[in-house]
Amino acid sequence: MDWKRHRREAHSQTRLQEFLRQIVYGGNDGIVTTFAIVAGFAGAASEGVAQIGGLAVLVFGLANLFADGVSMGLGEFLSARSEHDLYHRQRALELDEIARNPEHERMELFEILRQRGLPAGQADTVTTHLADHPNIMADLMLTYEFGMHSPEEDNPAMNGLFTFGSFILFGAVPLLPYFLRPADDFSFWLSVIATGLALLSLGLLRWYATGERALRCILETLLVGTTCALVAYGVGWVVGG
Amino acid sequence: MDWKRHRREAHSQTRLQEFLRQIVYGGNDGIVTTFAIVAGFAGAASEGVAQIGGLAVLVFGLANLFADGVSMGLGEFLSARSEHDLYHRQRALELDEIARNPEHERMELFEILRQRGLPAGQADTVTTHLADHPNIMADLMLTYEFGMHSPEEDNPAMNGLFTFGSFILFGAVPLLPYFLRPADDFSFWLSVIATGLALLSLGLLRWYATGERALRCILETLLVGTTCALVAYGVGWVVGG
Repeated sequence: MDWKRHRREAHSQTRLQEFLRQIVYGGNDGIVTTFAIVAGFAGAASEGVAQIGGLAVLVFGLANLFADGVSMGLGEFLSARSEHDLYHRQRALELDEIARNPEHERMELFEILRQRGLPAGQADTVTTHLADHPNIMADLMLTYEFGMHSPEEDNPAMNGLFTFGSFILFGAVPLLPYFLRPADDFSFWLSVIATGLALLSLGLLRWYATGERALRCILETLLVGTTCALVAYGVGWVVGG
Repeated sequence: MDWKRHRREAHSQTRLQEFLRQIVYGGNDGIVTTFAIVAGFAGAASEGVAQIGGLAVLVFGLANLFADGVSMGLGEFLSARSEHDLYHRQRALELDEIARNPEHERMELFEILRQRGLPAGQADTVTTHLADHPNIMADLMLTYEFGMHSPEEDNPAMNGLFTFGSFILFGAVPLLPYFLRPADDFSFWLSVIATGLALLSLGLLRWYATGERALRCILETLLVGTTCALVAYGVGWVVGG
Protein backbone atom coordinates (compact mmCIF):
# COMPACT_ATOMS: atom_id res chain seq x y z
CA MET A 1 0.00 0.00 0.00
CA ASP A 2 1.15 3.51 -0.81
CA TRP A 3 0.70 5.21 2.55
CA LYS A 4 1.39 8.68 1.22
CA ARG A 5 -1.49 8.31 -1.23
CA HIS A 6 -3.61 6.66 1.44
CA ARG A 7 -3.09 9.66 3.74
CA ARG A 8 -4.16 12.09 1.03
CA GLU A 9 -7.19 10.06 -0.04
CA ALA A 10 -8.50 8.35 3.09
CA HIS A 11 -7.43 11.03 5.59
CA SER A 12 -7.56 14.09 3.30
CA GLN A 13 -4.08 15.07 4.40
CA THR A 14 -3.15 18.24 2.57
CA ARG A 15 0.20 19.50 1.34
CA LEU A 16 -0.22 22.22 3.93
CA GLN A 17 -0.14 19.56 6.64
CA GLU A 18 2.56 17.50 4.95
CA PHE A 19 4.89 20.50 4.73
CA LEU A 20 3.63 22.58 7.65
CA ARG A 21 7.04 22.71 9.31
CA GLN A 22 8.73 24.03 6.18
CA ILE A 23 5.92 26.50 5.42
CA VAL A 24 6.02 28.02 8.92
CA TYR A 25 9.83 28.17 9.09
CA GLY A 26 10.27 29.64 5.61
CA GLY A 27 7.29 31.99 5.88
CA ASN A 28 8.35 33.49 9.21
CA ASP A 29 11.93 34.01 8.06
CA GLY A 30 10.80 35.52 4.75
CA ILE A 31 8.50 38.05 6.39
CA VAL A 32 11.14 39.11 8.92
CA THR A 33 13.97 39.34 6.39
CA THR A 34 12.08 41.60 3.99
CA PHE A 35 10.63 43.71 6.76
CA ALA A 36 14.15 44.30 8.11
CA ILE A 37 15.18 45.66 4.70
CA VAL A 38 12.13 47.91 4.44
CA ALA A 39 12.75 49.19 7.97
CA GLY A 40 16.42 49.76 7.20
CA PHE A 41 15.57 51.91 4.17
CA ALA A 42 12.94 53.81 6.14
CA GLY A 43 15.48 54.52 8.90
CA ALA A 44 18.09 55.72 6.42
CA ALA A 45 15.55 57.96 4.63
CA SER A 46 14.32 59.55 7.85
CA GLU A 47 17.88 60.45 8.79
CA GLY A 48 18.30 62.08 5.39
CA VAL A 49 21.18 59.73 4.52
CA ALA A 50 19.94 59.53 0.96
CA GLN A 51 16.92 60.16 -1.16
CA ILE A 52 15.67 56.64 -1.67
CA GLY A 53 13.14 55.78 -4.35
CA GLY A 54 10.51 53.05 -4.11
CA LEU A 55 12.32 51.25 -6.92
CA ALA A 56 15.48 50.92 -4.81
CA VAL A 57 13.53 49.35 -1.94
CA LEU A 58 11.87 46.98 -4.40
CA VAL A 59 15.04 45.95 -6.22
CA PHE A 60 17.00 45.52 -3.02
CA GLY A 61 14.09 43.78 -1.25
CA LEU A 62 13.32 41.36 -4.07
CA ALA A 63 16.99 40.55 -4.61
CA ASN A 64 17.47 39.75 -0.93
CA LEU A 65 14.24 37.80 -0.87
CA PHE A 66 15.54 35.60 -3.64
CA ALA A 67 19.05 35.13 -2.22
CA ASP A 68 17.87 34.38 1.32
CA GLY A 69 15.12 32.11 0.00
CA VAL A 70 17.68 30.05 -1.90
CA SER A 71 19.80 29.85 1.24
CA MET A 72 16.88 28.70 3.40
CA GLY A 73 15.67 26.18 0.82
CA LEU A 74 19.11 24.67 0.32
CA GLY A 75 19.77 24.75 4.07
CA GLU A 76 16.58 22.77 4.68
CA PHE A 77 17.66 20.31 1.99
CA LEU A 78 21.10 19.92 3.55
CA SER A 79 19.81 19.48 7.08
CA ALA A 80 17.22 16.88 6.00
CA ARG A 81 19.95 14.98 4.15
CA SER A 82 22.09 15.02 7.31
CA GLU A 83 19.23 13.69 9.38
CA HIS A 84 18.66 10.87 6.91
CA ASP A 85 22.34 9.96 6.96
CA LEU A 86 22.20 9.81 10.73
CA TYR A 87 19.16 7.54 10.59
CA HIS A 88 20.87 5.13 8.21
CA ARG A 89 23.96 5.00 10.39
CA GLN A 90 21.96 4.36 13.54
CA ARG A 91 19.87 1.72 11.77
CA ALA A 92 23.00 -0.15 10.63
CA LEU A 93 24.39 -0.03 14.20
CA GLU A 94 21.06 -1.28 15.55
CA LEU A 95 20.90 -4.19 13.07
CA ASP A 96 24.42 -5.05 14.09
CA GLU A 97 23.48 -5.07 17.79
CA ILE A 98 20.42 -7.19 17.06
CA ALA A 99 22.67 -9.73 15.32
CA ARG A 100 25.32 -9.72 18.06
CA ASN A 101 23.15 -9.49 21.13
CA PRO A 102 19.56 -10.48 20.25
CA GLU A 103 18.57 -11.19 23.85
CA HIS A 104 19.47 -7.70 24.98
CA GLU A 105 17.53 -6.07 22.12
CA ARG A 106 14.51 -8.27 22.88
CA MET A 107 14.57 -7.04 26.45
CA GLU A 108 14.69 -3.47 25.27
CA LEU A 109 11.71 -4.00 22.98
CA PHE A 110 9.88 -5.76 25.80
CA GLU A 111 10.50 -2.76 28.03
CA ILE A 112 9.33 -0.30 25.36
CA LEU A 113 6.04 -2.21 25.00
CA ARG A 114 5.61 -2.47 28.77
CA GLN A 115 6.24 1.25 29.18
CA ARG A 116 3.54 1.98 26.63
CA GLY A 117 1.05 -0.02 28.65
CA LEU A 118 1.11 -3.55 27.27
CA PRO A 119 0.74 -6.18 30.05
CA ALA A 120 3.81 -8.40 30.56
CA GLY A 121 2.25 -11.48 28.95
CA GLN A 122 1.22 -9.72 25.78
CA ALA A 123 4.47 -7.76 25.58
CA ASP A 124 6.34 -11.06 25.77
CA THR A 125 4.28 -12.65 23.00
CA VAL A 126 4.61 -9.65 20.71
CA THR A 127 8.37 -9.41 21.36
CA THR A 128 8.81 -13.10 20.57
CA HIS A 129 7.06 -12.74 17.22
CA LEU A 130 8.88 -9.57 16.25
CA ALA A 131 12.30 -10.82 17.38
CA ASP A 132 12.51 -13.07 14.30
CA HIS A 133 12.50 -10.02 12.06
CA PRO A 134 15.55 -7.79 12.51
CA ASN A 135 14.21 -5.17 10.08
CA ILE A 136 11.01 -4.62 12.06
CA MET A 137 12.96 -4.73 15.32
CA ALA A 138 15.36 -2.08 14.02
CA ASP A 139 12.47 0.14 12.83
CA LEU A 140 10.77 -0.04 16.21
CA MET A 141 13.96 0.53 18.17
CA LEU A 142 14.87 3.58 16.10
CA THR A 143 11.41 5.02 16.55
CA TYR A 144 11.01 4.34 20.26
CA GLU A 145 14.53 3.87 21.65
CA PHE A 146 16.12 6.65 19.63
CA GLY A 147 13.10 8.83 18.95
CA MET A 148 14.20 9.07 15.32
CA HIS A 149 11.99 9.76 12.35
CA SER A 150 12.08 7.25 9.48
CA PRO A 151 13.12 9.13 6.36
CA GLU A 152 11.65 6.68 3.87
CA GLU A 153 8.82 8.94 2.73
CA ASP A 154 10.65 12.21 3.31
CA ASN A 155 11.95 14.03 0.30
CA PRO A 156 14.64 16.61 1.18
CA ALA A 157 14.31 18.27 -2.24
CA MET A 158 10.55 18.79 -1.77
CA ASN A 159 11.19 20.07 1.78
CA GLY A 160 13.63 22.58 0.35
CA LEU A 161 11.20 23.67 -2.39
CA PHE A 162 8.36 24.27 0.06
CA THR A 163 10.69 26.26 2.32
CA PHE A 164 11.80 28.38 -0.64
CA GLY A 165 8.25 28.88 -1.93
CA SER A 166 6.87 29.87 1.46
CA PHE A 167 9.82 32.22 2.05
CA ILE A 168 9.20 34.00 -1.28
CA LEU A 169 5.39 34.17 -0.96
CA PHE A 170 5.22 35.45 2.60
CA GLY A 171 8.41 37.46 2.28
CA ALA A 172 7.00 39.45 -0.66
CA VAL A 173 4.14 40.86 1.44
CA PRO A 174 6.07 43.61 3.31
CA LEU A 175 7.20 44.88 -0.12
CA LEU A 176 3.68 45.20 -1.57
CA PRO A 177 3.16 48.90 -0.65
CA TYR A 178 6.31 49.80 -2.59
CA PHE A 179 4.84 48.31 -5.75
CA LEU A 180 1.94 50.75 -5.47
CA ARG A 181 3.39 54.07 -4.40
CA PRO A 182 6.61 56.06 -3.74
CA ALA A 183 8.79 55.23 -0.75
CA ASP A 184 7.84 57.58 2.07
CA ASP A 185 6.77 57.38 5.68
CA PHE A 186 3.29 56.34 4.67
CA SER A 187 4.59 53.40 2.60
CA PHE A 188 6.60 52.33 5.59
CA TRP A 189 3.54 52.26 7.85
CA LEU A 190 1.57 50.43 5.16
CA SER A 191 4.42 47.91 5.11
CA VAL A 192 4.23 47.54 8.90
CA ILE A 193 0.54 46.71 8.50
CA ALA A 194 1.25 44.32 5.63
CA THR A 195 3.88 42.59 7.77
CA GLY A 196 1.37 42.20 10.60
CA LEU A 197 -1.20 40.78 8.21
CA ALA A 198 1.35 38.34 6.77
CA LEU A 199 2.19 37.07 10.27
CA LEU A 200 -1.52 36.86 11.05
CA SER A 201 -2.07 34.74 7.92
CA LEU A 202 0.76 32.45 8.95
CA GLY A 203 -0.88 32.07 12.37
CA LEU A 204 -4.25 31.32 10.76
CA LEU A 205 -2.59 28.77 8.50
CA ARG A 206 -1.15 27.03 11.55
CA TRP A 207 -4.56 27.05 13.18
CA TYR A 208 -6.24 25.69 10.04
CA ALA A 209 -3.66 22.91 9.67
CA THR A 210 -3.42 21.83 13.29
CA GLY A 211 -6.86 22.61 14.70
CA GLU A 212 -5.22 23.94 17.88
CA ARG A 213 -6.78 26.92 19.65
CA ALA A 214 -6.85 29.80 17.17
CA LEU A 215 -5.78 32.37 19.74
CA ARG A 216 -2.64 30.48 20.70
CA CYS A 217 -1.62 29.81 17.08
CA ILE A 218 -2.08 33.43 16.11
CA LEU A 219 -0.57 35.03 19.22
CA GLU A 220 2.44 32.75 19.20
CA THR A 221 3.13 33.45 15.53
CA LEU A 222 2.63 37.20 15.95
CA LEU A 223 4.84 37.25 19.04
CA VAL A 224 7.71 35.36 17.42
CA GLY A 225 7.49 37.42 14.22
CA THR A 226 7.27 40.71 16.08
CA THR A 227 10.23 39.80 18.29
CA CYS A 228 12.33 38.97 15.23
CA ALA A 229 11.25 42.16 13.47
CA LEU A 230 11.98 44.30 16.56
CA VAL A 231 15.42 42.76 16.99
CA ALA A 232 16.16 43.38 13.31
CA TYR A 233 14.84 46.93 13.52
CA GLY A 234 16.67 47.65 16.78
CA VAL A 235 19.92 46.30 15.43
CA GLY A 236 19.49 48.39 12.27
CA TRP A 237 18.82 51.46 14.39
CA VAL A 238 21.89 50.92 16.60
CA VAL A 239 24.14 50.30 13.61
CA GLY A 240 22.64 53.14 11.58
CA GLY A 241 22.91 55.57 14.50
CA MET B 1 13.46 3.89 31.51
CA ASP B 2 14.72 7.29 30.44
CA TRP B 3 15.53 6.63 26.80
CA LYS B 4 17.25 9.95 26.25
CA ARG B 5 19.70 9.16 29.02
CA HIS B 6 19.98 5.57 27.79
CA ARG B 7 20.95 6.84 24.33
CA ARG B 8 23.66 9.07 25.76
CA GLU B 9 25.06 6.43 28.10
CA ALA B 10 24.60 3.09 26.35
CA HIS B 11 24.90 4.37 22.77
CA SER B 12 27.17 7.37 23.40
CA GLN B 13 24.81 9.56 21.44
CA THR B 14 26.21 13.06 21.43
CA ARG B 15 24.48 16.43 21.40
CA LEU B 16 25.99 16.81 17.95
CA GLN B 17 23.93 13.85 16.79
CA GLU B 18 20.85 14.84 18.76
CA PHE B 19 20.79 18.30 17.20
CA LEU B 20 22.56 17.61 13.91
CA ARG B 21 19.64 18.94 11.85
CA GLN B 22 19.60 22.24 13.70
CA ILE B 23 23.39 22.59 13.69
CA VAL B 24 23.64 22.06 9.94
CA TYR B 25 20.68 24.32 9.10
CA GLY B 26 21.77 27.16 11.39
CA GLY B 27 25.46 26.82 10.57
CA ASN B 28 24.98 26.94 6.81
CA ASP B 29 22.65 29.92 6.99
CA GLY B 30 24.95 31.78 9.38
CA ILE B 31 28.01 31.35 7.15
CA VAL B 32 26.12 32.45 4.03
CA THR B 33 24.43 35.43 5.68
CA THR B 34 27.66 36.93 7.05
CA PHE B 35 29.60 36.21 3.90
CA ALA B 36 26.94 38.06 1.89
CA ILE B 37 27.48 41.14 4.08
CA VAL B 38 31.27 40.95 3.80
CA ALA B 39 30.96 40.54 0.03
CA GLY B 40 28.54 43.48 -0.16
CA PHE B 41 30.97 45.77 1.67
CA ALA B 42 33.86 44.57 -0.50
CA GLY B 43 31.82 45.30 -3.65
CA ALA B 44 30.87 48.77 -2.43
CA ALA B 45 34.48 49.55 -1.47
CA SER B 46 35.89 48.44 -4.83
CA GLU B 47 33.47 50.74 -6.63
CA GLY B 48 34.66 53.61 -4.46
CA VAL B 49 31.16 54.14 -3.11
CA ALA B 50 32.58 54.91 0.29
CA GLN B 51 35.67 54.53 2.36
CA ILE B 52 34.67 51.66 4.59
CA GLY B 53 36.59 50.80 7.73
CA GLY B 54 37.01 47.34 9.18
CA LEU B 55 34.98 48.48 12.17
CA ALA B 56 31.92 49.17 9.98
CA VAL B 57 32.07 45.67 8.51
CA LEU B 58 32.38 44.22 12.01
CA VAL B 59 29.56 46.25 13.56
CA PHE B 60 27.22 45.66 10.64
CA GLY B 61 28.20 42.00 10.32
CA LEU B 62 27.85 41.19 14.03
CA ALA B 63 24.54 43.06 14.30
CA ASN B 64 23.09 41.15 11.36
CA LEU B 65 24.51 37.91 12.70
CA PHE B 66 22.62 38.47 15.92
CA ALA B 67 19.33 39.58 14.33
CA ASP B 68 19.26 36.77 11.76
CA GLY B 69 20.31 34.23 14.39
CA VAL B 70 17.37 35.23 16.58
CA SER B 71 15.06 34.93 13.59
CA MET B 72 16.36 31.45 12.69
CA GLY B 73 16.23 30.22 16.29
CA LEU B 74 12.69 31.48 16.88
CA GLY B 75 11.62 30.20 13.44
CA GLU B 76 12.89 26.73 14.33
CA PHE B 77 11.02 26.93 17.64
CA LEU B 78 7.80 28.00 15.90
CA SER B 79 8.00 25.33 13.22
CA ALA B 80 8.70 22.58 15.76
CA ARG B 81 5.69 23.76 17.80
CA SER B 82 3.53 23.60 14.68
CA GLU B 83 4.68 20.09 13.95
CA HIS B 84 3.89 19.00 17.49
CA ASP B 85 0.40 20.53 17.27
CA LEU B 86 -0.18 18.61 14.07
CA TYR B 87 0.94 15.38 15.71
CA HIS B 88 -1.46 15.84 18.62
CA ARG B 89 -4.34 16.58 16.27
CA GLN B 90 -3.62 13.54 14.13
CA ARG B 91 -3.25 11.34 17.22
CA ALA B 92 -6.63 12.44 18.56
CA LEU B 93 -8.22 11.70 15.17
CA GLU B 94 -6.54 8.31 15.09
CA LEU B 95 -7.70 7.37 18.61
CA ASP B 96 -11.17 8.41 17.52
CA GLU B 97 -11.03 6.16 14.48
CA ILE B 98 -9.71 3.27 16.57
CA ALA B 99 -12.72 3.68 18.88
CA ARG B 100 -15.24 3.99 16.06
CA ASN B 101 -13.88 1.46 13.63
CA PRO B 102 -11.47 -0.89 15.42
CA GLU B 103 -11.65 -3.60 12.76
CA HIS B 104 -10.51 -1.24 10.03
CA GLU B 105 -7.57 0.01 12.10
CA ARG B 106 -6.58 -3.56 12.91
CA MET B 107 -6.48 -4.34 9.21
CA GLU B 108 -4.28 -1.33 8.60
CA LEU B 109 -1.87 -2.39 11.33
CA PHE B 110 -1.90 -5.93 9.95
CA GLU B 111 -1.00 -4.57 6.53
CA ILE B 112 1.80 -2.41 7.93
CA LEU B 113 3.36 -5.43 9.64
CA ARG B 114 2.94 -7.58 6.53
CA GLN B 115 4.55 -4.91 4.38
CA ARG B 116 7.53 -4.86 6.71
CA GLY B 117 8.04 -8.58 6.24
CA LEU B 118 6.12 -10.28 9.07
CA PRO B 119 4.42 -13.52 7.87
CA ALA B 120 0.59 -13.43 7.95
CA GLY B 121 0.28 -15.69 11.01
CA GLN B 122 2.66 -13.66 13.14
CA ALA B 123 1.25 -10.34 11.90
CA ASP B 124 -2.19 -11.55 12.94
CA THR B 125 -1.04 -12.56 16.43
CA VAL B 126 0.82 -9.30 17.02
CA THR B 127 -2.13 -7.25 15.75
CA THR B 128 -4.52 -9.11 18.03
CA HIS B 129 -2.39 -8.36 21.09
CA LEU B 130 -1.81 -4.72 20.20
CA ALA B 131 -5.44 -4.08 19.24
CA ASP B 132 -6.43 -4.05 22.92
CA HIS B 133 -4.30 -0.99 23.50
CA PRO B 134 -5.47 2.09 21.62
CA ASN B 135 -2.48 4.16 22.75
CA ILE B 136 0.07 1.76 21.30
CA MET B 137 -2.08 1.33 18.17
CA ALA B 138 -2.22 5.11 17.72
CA ASP B 139 1.57 5.44 18.21
CA LEU B 140 2.27 2.79 15.61
CA MET B 141 -0.25 4.14 13.12
CA LEU B 142 1.14 7.67 13.40
CA THR B 143 4.66 6.41 12.88
CA TYR B 144 3.98 4.02 10.03
CA GLU B 145 0.69 5.13 8.44
CA PHE B 146 1.39 8.85 8.71
CA GLY B 147 5.18 8.86 8.77
CA MET B 148 5.03 11.31 11.68
CA HIS B 149 7.65 11.83 14.31
CA SER B 150 6.58 11.53 17.93
CA PRO B 151 7.35 14.82 19.66
CA GLU B 152 7.47 13.44 23.18
CA GLU B 153 11.24 13.81 23.59
CA ASP B 154 11.58 16.80 21.32
CA ASN B 155 12.13 20.18 22.90
CA PRO B 156 11.36 23.08 20.51
CA ALA B 157 13.15 25.55 22.80
CA MET B 158 16.36 23.48 22.74
CA ASN B 159 16.03 23.07 18.97
CA GLY B 160 15.81 26.84 18.68
CA LEU B 161 18.81 27.39 20.97
CA PHE B 162 21.01 25.00 19.01
CA THR B 163 19.98 26.66 15.75
CA PHE B 164 20.82 30.08 17.20
CA GLY B 165 24.15 28.89 18.66
CA SER B 166 25.27 27.21 15.48
CA PHE B 167 24.22 30.24 13.41
CA ILE B 168 26.31 32.56 15.60
CA LEU B 169 29.37 30.30 15.87
CA PHE B 170 29.67 29.41 12.19
CA GLY B 171 28.39 32.78 11.03
CA ALA B 172 31.16 34.61 12.93
CA VAL B 173 33.91 32.90 10.92
CA PRO B 174 33.70 35.03 7.71
CA LEU B 175 34.13 38.10 9.95
CA LEU B 176 37.32 36.88 11.63
CA PRO B 177 39.77 38.60 9.23
CA TYR B 178 38.14 41.97 10.01
CA PHE B 179 38.94 41.54 13.70
CA LEU B 180 42.62 41.33 12.80
CA ARG B 181 43.26 43.88 10.10
CA PRO B 182 41.77 46.81 8.12
CA ALA B 183 39.08 46.20 5.54
CA ASP B 184 40.77 45.92 2.15
CA ASP B 185 40.92 43.51 -0.77
CA PHE B 186 43.21 41.23 1.15
CA SER B 187 40.79 40.99 4.11
CA PHE B 188 38.07 40.10 1.65
CA TRP B 189 40.07 37.22 0.19
CA LEU B 190 40.99 36.06 3.69
CA SER B 191 37.27 36.09 4.43
CA VAL B 192 36.58 34.01 1.32
CA ILE B 193 39.08 31.46 2.62
CA ALA B 194 37.56 31.59 6.13
CA THR B 195 34.11 31.02 4.61
CA GLY B 196 35.41 28.00 2.70
CA LEU B 197 37.01 26.62 5.87
CA ALA B 198 33.77 27.14 7.85
CA LEU B 199 31.79 25.21 5.22
CA LEU B 200 34.49 22.53 5.22
CA SER B 201 34.17 22.22 9.02
CA LEU B 202 30.41 21.88 8.72
CA GLY B 203 30.92 19.10 6.16
CA LEU B 204 33.43 17.36 8.45
CA LEU B 205 30.98 17.66 11.33
CA ARG B 206 28.29 15.97 9.24
CA TRP B 207 30.74 13.23 8.36
CA TYR B 208 31.80 12.77 11.98
CA ALA B 209 28.18 12.60 13.18
CA THR B 210 26.77 10.37 10.45
CA GLY B 211 29.73 8.21 9.41
CA GLU B 212 28.69 8.61 5.76
CA ARG B 213 31.40 8.84 3.09
CA ALA B 214 33.53 11.87 3.95
CA LEU B 215 33.81 13.02 0.35
CA ARG B 216 30.05 13.18 -0.13
CA CYS B 217 29.42 14.99 3.19
CA ILE B 218 32.09 17.58 2.46
CA LEU B 219 31.35 18.12 -1.23
CA GLU B 220 27.60 18.38 -0.65
CA THR B 221 28.07 20.94 2.11
CA LEU B 222 30.61 22.94 0.12
CA LEU B 223 28.38 22.87 -2.97
CA VAL B 224 25.26 24.04 -1.15
CA GLY B 225 27.17 26.75 0.77
CA THR B 226 28.99 27.96 -2.34
CA THR B 227 25.75 28.09 -4.34
CA CYS B 228 24.09 30.17 -1.61
CA ALA B 229 27.13 32.45 -1.36
CA LEU B 230 27.31 32.91 -5.14
CA VAL B 231 23.60 33.72 -5.38
CA ALA B 232 23.97 36.24 -2.54
CA TYR B 233 27.09 37.73 -4.14
CA GLY B 234 25.52 37.80 -7.62
CA VAL B 235 22.38 39.46 -6.32
CA GLY B 236 24.46 42.03 -4.43
CA TRP B 237 26.48 42.69 -7.56
CA VAL B 238 23.39 43.17 -9.76
CA VAL B 239 21.70 45.44 -7.20
CA GLY B 240 24.92 47.37 -6.46
CA GLY B 241 25.70 47.82 -10.18
